[in-house]
Amino acid sequence: MTDSLTDLRDRTRAFAAARDWEQYHTPKNLAMALSVEVAELAEHFQWLPTGRAGELAEGQHQAICHELADVLLYLVQIADKLDVDLHAAALEKIKLNAIKYPPPKA
Amino acid sequence: MTDSLTDLRDRTRAFAAARDWEQYHTPKNLAMALSVEVAELAEHFQWLPTGRAGELAEGQHQAICHELADVLLYLVQIADKLDVDLHAAALEKIKLNAIKYPPPKA
Amino acid sequence: MTDSLTDLRDRTRAFAAARDWEQYHTPKNLAMALSVEVAELAEHFQWLPTGRAGELAEGQHQAICHELADVLLYLVQIADKLDVDLHAAALEKIKLNAIKYPPPKA
Amino acid sequence: MTDSLTDLRDRTRAFAAARDWEQYHTPKNLAMALSVEVAELAEHFQWLPTGRAGELAEGQHQAICHELADVLLYLVQIADKLDVDLHAAALEKIKLNAIKYPPPKA
Repeated sequence: MTDSLTDLRDRTRAFAAARDWEQYHTPKNLAMALSVEVAELAEHFQWLPTGRAGELAEGQHQAICHELADVLLYLVQIADKLDVDLHAAALEKIKLNAIKYPPPKA
Repeated sequence: MTDSLTDLRDRTRAFAAARDWEQYHTPKNLAMALSVEVAELAEHFQWLPTGRAGELAEGQHQAICHELADVLLYLVQIADKLDVDLHAAALEKIKLNAIKYPPPKA
Repeated sequence: MTDSLTDLRDRTRAFAAARDWEQYHTPKNLAMALSVEVAELAEHFQWLPTGRAGELAEGQHQAICHELADVLLYLVQIADKLDVDLHAAALEKIKLNAIKYPPPKA
Repeated sequence: MTDSLTDLRDRTRAFAAARDWEQYHTPKNLAMALSVEVAELAEHFQWLPTGRAGELAEGQHQAICHELADVLLYLVQIADKLDVDLHAAALEKIKLNAIKYPPPKA
């Protein structure tokens, strides 16, 4: 089975190509679109007292699901335009974070 | 081999647990942190004339790589807190987008 | 005549008080709402080739006007909650920026 | 005395002109820069339990002050590029909000 991030990269490539949207998809424009989707996600949480999952209304889960998907799809496209392997980049960042924030000793 | 998104979910869970950070990781706080990382990504592009990849300075690629990783890591953690399967959500969103934006006829 | 920023501070105070919204208006929530409004502004520009004003469609001006207003209104409210004089803060920041970025010599 | 928003518009115009920065200051680029500054503001609040002002650390107030100033300065510049009178736009938006969210009857 194809890996999920590779699968989404291939699907977003085909989707944009079929619609001749590549001309709009500069990394800058995709980064701006990404920030718009992240704000649509944040909007669901903005007035919650603490933001725990239990404070969300019943019907919000599906909408949030779609926003999370939009964020991922733009992220995959930016990474693709810049030839970044997202999984490898994330593994490297986790290593750097582990050095920056060492776990407390037992 | 473990799927990339599942792998990152497991690694971020372990990372947060080892540092007792789960108390801060409400979906709301993670969404806010996600928006901060997206802005750090956008910062690299803000003054570019059109935003094509070729306009970036040589040294920016590595920094952008780290920002993309940060965005992905927070996204994975929000999805995990809300029990969302990111790959499945993205596949569903692609289907909905294909209906909303049908490809032009050949 | 009342100064514009002072006028808006007074009006947003009265507006929130009349609706008993102060309970939601923590600086954090207002900052999150601000970021949402900024994204709604950015959305108008995300696919423009360079982003010059002339690339905007005719009907977008009114919508952009409203988004700019929303951004200002939330900004005024955050500053109010934190007892910040926005005009004084901006004057100070301009001074700091002038030191950080000295103008080129003639 | 000059009105605060008019004063800041004049000062930001002079500042950009003295540095020949107008070439970078398309509304799109300024909107992107605005979103970056808003995220730098949001960063101070992201891990707070509820986000009330009292949860901020002592030293954060000055930094937040500068971020609020940055947000205002970019906002003023976008409005200027698009010939928007920010105060008038905000007054109009307050009127529209009052219709959309009528106050509860006493």
